[in-house]
Amino acid sequence: MKSFNYYQPTRLLFGSGRRSEAGAAAKTLADSALFVVDPVLLKVAADKVEDVQKSLSEAGVRAVTFSDVVPNPTLDAIQRGAEIAKSEGVKAVIGMGGGSAIDTAKAIAVAATHPGTAWDYLYFKKAPTSATLPIMAINTTSGTGTQTSKVSVFTNTEESCKSAMWNDNLLCRIAIIDPELMLSLPTGVTASTGFDIFTHTFESYINTGASEAVDAIALDAIARVLRSLPVAVVNGSNLSAREDLAWADTLAGQCLANVGTTLPHAAGQPISGHFPKVSHGESLAVIYPAFAEFTWRGAVGKFAKVARMFNPALSTASEEVAAQSLELEIERFLKMIGLYRRLDDFGITPADIPPILAHAMEFPDSQGNPIVPSEEDMRQIYMKSFRKA
Amino acid sequence: MKSFNYYQPTRLLFGSGRRSEAGAAAKTLADSALFVVDPVLLKVAADKVEDVQKSLSEAGVRAVTFSDVVPNPTLDAIQRGAEIAKSEGVKAVIGMGGGSAIDTAKAIAVAATHPGTAWDYLYFKKAPTSATLPIMAINTTSGTGTQTSKVSVFTNTEESCKSAMWNDNLLCRIAIIDPELMLSLPTGVTASTGFDIFTHTFESYINTGASEAVDAIALDAIARVLRSLPVAVVNGSNLSAREDLAWADTLAGQCLANVGTTLPHAAGQPISGHFPKVSHGESLAVIYPAFAEFTWRGAVGKFAKVARMFNPALSTASEEVAAQSLELEIERFLKMIGLYRRLDDFGITPADIPPILAHAMEFPDSQGNPIVPSEEDMRQIYMKSFRKA
Ligand SMILES: [Fe+2]
Ligand SMILES: [Fe+2]
Repeated sequence: MKSFNYYQPTRLLFGSGRRSEAGAAAKTLADSALFVVDPVLLKVAADKVEDVQKSLSEAGVRAVTFSDVVPNPTLDAIQRGAEIAKSEGVKAVIGMGGGSAIDTAKAIAVAATHPGTAWDYLYFKKAPTSATLPIMAINTTSGTGTQTSKVSVFTNTEESCKSAMWNDNLLCRIAIIDPELMLSLPTGVTASTGFDIFTHTFESYINTGASEAVDAIALDAIARVLRSLPVAVVNGSNLSAREDLAWADTLAGQCLANVGTTLPHAAGQPISGHFPKVSHGESLAVIYPAFAEFTWRGAVGKFAKVARMFNPALSTASEEVAAQSLELEIERFLKMIGLYRRLDDFGITPADIPPILAHAMEFPDSQGNPIVPSEEDMRQIYMKSFRKA
Repeated sequence: MKSFNYYQPTRLLFGSGRRSEAGAAAKTLADSALFVVDPVLLKVAADKVEDVQKSLSEAGVRAVTFSDVVPNPTLDAIQRGAEIAKSEGVKAVIGMGGGSAIDTAKAIAVAATHPGTAWDYLYFKKAPTSATLPIMAINTTSGTGTQTSKVSVFTNTEESCKSAMWNDNLLCRIAIIDPELMLSLPTGVTASTGFDIFTHTFESYINTGASEAVDAIALDAIARVLRSLPVAVVNGSNLSAREDLAWADTLAGQCLANVGTTLPHAAGQPISGHFPKVSHGESLAVIYPAFAEFTWRGAVGKFAKVARMFNPALSTASEEVAAQSLELEIERFLKMIGLYRRLDDFGITPADIPPILAHAMEFPDSQGNPIVPSEEDMRQIYMKSFRKA
């Protein structure tokens, strides 16, 4: 067995209705908190937000609500939140919402307690210290796994640059995963965030930095996505499918915290960067078939194992045939959940590829791919992600 | 899905040879530590202990060695260790050895920082606070899972009573799991501690307080024990079998920290209590067949699943037949690893049962059994654990 490290210290409270325990949980961290909440949630799920606010108040936690949260969190909004956290003297940060709200909360926890701005603490700059305010997450989507990962992604609009903090101090102390909060997610969001769960676990599983600790978690999560994402896409109010996906997402965050993504995230993120209308999940859906075709020879056993989870009929196929089949199985799955996309679908043309490609080559993720792509390899992956003529 | 909590914050450093990282790891906790080491280890593996001491010294961690560790840790020894920790002013405790050394280290971490003695902090008395010194484990056996559990078991010889502390503050901050340290375990110890791993995971899996978070971990660990314990029993120096068992044991500790044992531990521990020559693993081996016969109807699906892991030929049997077969499969497995025992083998007679039974009924573990035993049920389980006439 290869040596490995494993660390995931978040206290997990999983289950339908558990948002009502937010107060008692937060009270174990501090008597006061900045309550960072997605403004959309205040409109479409005001009652659920009130459940949390009521619970905080009943537990004697002074909560200062901050809803200046934008879909791709900006440094400006983070710094505004940090100023409020400082002037109010709160001792913890609670994020409620999707990845944006929780990543905003994480970044505020750093910005409110360190000199400079959150931008000074990107993963390749200074490390956030243990002065970081304790963070609690109440996630309302299943996709980013941020409740168990140690990342916070945000954008510096002045520098037109999206980057991330990545540190153990960004691991939430407590995460409340209440699948009832996910019942009202629209179909498209369910499909794209659900596929993102699959990618986080699959890429951690095949990563050359993977470990047996993460393999087992990843396979458990993949099985849940395969059985429950198609159900949730067809019937978003199916609670047991939502529960399965919520737990899969939490496991995926554990994979991200200990291993991480590979080629598809390096290739996909610049697509969304240059064409913001392409969601993160869509960008991955575009890339996955060509990525699988490029990569399967580098991890035959693992590709074969996952292909057989998609299609048990492959149990009688050879390892190579099963591994190579994963490309087709993923295409079929994407079509089933309504997420099969080609670059053409977004009006992207081959002429748009060079700047996207240049950005993709800057991402470190591809270094963990079973076959590390050259720039020419990556260019071909993009070219194969157009519709076949 | 049932609601559940999950919490396991130990930083795990897994891999052969990683004892050499003890210094760097300990340094992240403190500059000084009480180094609690099993005296047997000082004799039979002095070089391995020196590896750790050298690493601590090179990292600038002042380590005060304390080797007053006995097989069933006593309150007296713990208090002696606590006095040294206090007079030396150390800021952490490192335990190296089997469960006894690590449980001693855990108890010292509490006793050195709290008024009274460790005995005042048993699970049903006062709770140890966050003043507890940070604990690091370097375990040299695979069985108790103490490196990832929150328990410390010890004996008050004055009161002739064995009991336990059970608290989140007893979770190790860091555990170094170095399978090379387990290569020299004798066959009998390998079999009995290895079977103990199985029982911790199986009992957590069937526990009525189980959760899907722990189910997956438990099944992973069970698969590892089934494939690697027979190998390690036959060839103790097989490193990959030792690695598999060491990781299974670490997973088992995660199960214990979040769920816990059931009927067999309640029934087995008083056997060892009254007949100290019966090891913990032997006491469980004695009880398991009758426990399985008594319990399978209460958890047919889970018993069937595990029976099929023992014997894939049961895949075509009905759920009931497979579940009921687990008793026989476990007997076969115990015979294979040389651990099949009946009460008669230890000179225990039916006349010895009443006081053992009285003790067994005091243990809370049976309350989580799929079928909660009455005193008469438990008496019959003991009576069936004699050799058939
Ligand atoms: Fe992603
Ligand atoms: Fe045990």
